[in-house]
Amino acid sequence: MTITTPLCDLLGIDHPIILGGMMGISDAALTTAVSNGGGLGTLSSATFGVDGTRAELSKIAETTNRSFSVNLPLFHPMVPNLLDLLPEFGVKIVTTSAGNPAKYIDVLKDMGIFVIHVISSVRTARKAEDAGVDAIVAEGSESGGKVAIDEVPTISLLPQVIDSVKIPVVAAGGFASGRGLLAALAMGAQGVQMGTRFIASEESRAHKNWKDVLVNVGDSATSIALRNSSPTRLIKNEFFREMDALDEPGKKAMDFMHVQQAGSERIPDDIDGSQGNYTAGTGSGLIRDIKPAADIIQDVLKEAESSMRELQQAFS
Amino acid sequence: MTITTPLCDLLGIDHPIILGGMMGISDAALTTAVSNGGGLGTLSSATFGVDGTRAELSKIAETTNRSFSVNLPLFHPMVPNLLDLLPEFGVKIVTTSAGNPAKYIDVLKDMGIFVIHVISSVRTARKAEDAGVDAIVAEGSESGGKVAIDEVPTISLLPQVIDSVKIPVVAAGGFASGRGLLAALAMGAQGVQMGTRFIASEESRAHKNWKDVLVNVGDSATSIALRNSSPTRLIKNEFFREMDALDEPGKKAMDFMHVQQAGSERIPDDIDGSQGNYTAGTGSGLIRDIKPAADIIQDVLKEAESSMRELQQAFS
Repeated sequence: MTITTPLCDLLGIDHPIILGGMMGISDAALTTAVSNGGGLGTLSSATFGVDGTRAELSKIAETTNRSFSVNLPLFHPMVPNLLDLLPEFGVKIVTTSAGNPAKYIDVLKDMGIFVIHVISSVRTARKAEDAGVDAIVAEGSESGGKVAIDEVPTISLLPQVIDSVKIPVVAAGGFASGRGLLAALAMGAQGVQMGTRFIASEESRAHKNWKDVLVNVGDSATSIALRNSSPTRLIKNEFFREMDALDEPGKKAMDFMHVQQAGSERIPDDIDGSQGNYTAGTGSGLIRDIKPAADIIQDVLKEAESSMRELQQAFS
Repeated sequence: MTITTPLCDLLGIDHPIILGGMMGISDAALTTAVSNGGGLGTLSSATFGVDGTRAELSKIAETTNRSFSVNLPLFHPMVPNLLDLLPEFGVKIVTTSAGNPAKYIDVLKDMGIFVIHVISSVRTARKAEDAGVDAIVAEGSESGGKVAIDEVPTISLLPQVIDSVKIPVVAAGGFASGRGLLAALAMGAQGVQMGTRFIASEESRAHKNWKDVLVNVGDSATSIALRNSSPTRLIKNEFFREMDALDEPGKKAMDFMHVQQAGSERIPDDIDGSQGNYTAGTGSGLIRDIKPAADIIQDVLKEAESSMRELQQAFS
């Protein structure tokens, strides 16, 4: 049994599993680990800046011939400089987020690049399709890190987005298992994007304490902080409460960068997981082990296949 | 193609679709409409009190021979009197919620009743199984009305609950379509419970303005009010903001009964949907029409079947 969708052919990947371009996490090592595992790795350019992204792209070029994507944070002033890097490294796939893709779509399409755009509402999905992107990631409010203020959950967002656009849709937000992949495909998605699950991979640069938190927490471990200013999903602990106490309408993501940085610096000494800044989606409760990214992909596929066999028994 | 699960046999129903026992909505008419459509209707005893529930049970007895359930709100002091009604009307299935099922499980099992218990976390699912209930409804934070303070969404709650108990699990929260049913079954559920979808049915006692709101809203229409006291999902409108402004830690559900009642009384004059108290789950964005409950069930089944055919194309 193998699982494949038309999007796999468009992206040149074996399995419909995409690494989220996570700030601070999705580097060359994790990107190539996912791509070499048959999925689509995604490099977070925002993590590295222009020179750093060039260095990461060099590493990717050395370690894989497989498809990968580069995430471009559209609001960022460095995007024009990042665009210059793409032909230099023969980048074929770009994932745009945090802004309107219309701004750069022409230059990306002129480079022959396949553009995936991340949205969290039907309205922005339609706008992205109208702008000319090639595929959509529909990200529900289950995802770790920044979430849209409307907080539309995956189970409702995904089918509505699929009904609203003709281009392929990838499901994101809360996915960490094969049953999740199967559920996403059942609703009409052509793949899943997973972030948190890959934070707990061997190749991930996340600190061991962060990975251990993800392996050990249960179903109710995450919540959304800063709901009045810059909604962000992370592990509910002391740090969460400290940061959330600073929430105030009118504040912006930038206003919390220092406190988030301080929370991240606490991680190496945070033995019990109570003090650190741990970005995590709701899928963290499903994570039971730290594994190589390629093994995670195989586990997801195997579970999806066995769940498909069980699902078939409900139909006669 | 037909869809059936072992739970269908246990409940004596044709299709794995259950009506949520919604306060103010799930009366004899809607219960029998769902049961006669091949699903499992659920009467909300809390809506009617003891004498009213007797009257509703009489109506059900007159209009269907099919399986139905009676919802018992466990915290309520009238539960012992409701229990007396069950043998009188030959009730075979009870759905318990809002409390610990251990309190009444022995008397229910002594009556030979199949007990379904509604939970919103892995912890309470395990507790209910230990108490001896026969099946679980795992209700994610997508559901309309009261939601658990931890707000665990369906896509994460469901597989974790299924991993944690051996008894059958029904998915609830955000379900309003056939793709939702298929996704739930894909994750290992043995059925779905739908509430909001059936509010917008012909047999539902909800005011036409409420049904029209559900048909017309989009993906971002609902949110959770009273997050600090008594989290409740409803349509985000003027009424939502007025009630949410009264939120305060320490307040209880009872403290908002009067304001909710006032919001419900505004519904008949609320032409544009901005002023009324409209309980609604996130699945409301998927609702496109007001139909007989039996037709809704058929639509859900047909969509699930055609989605299954598409899903099979991803596997080879």
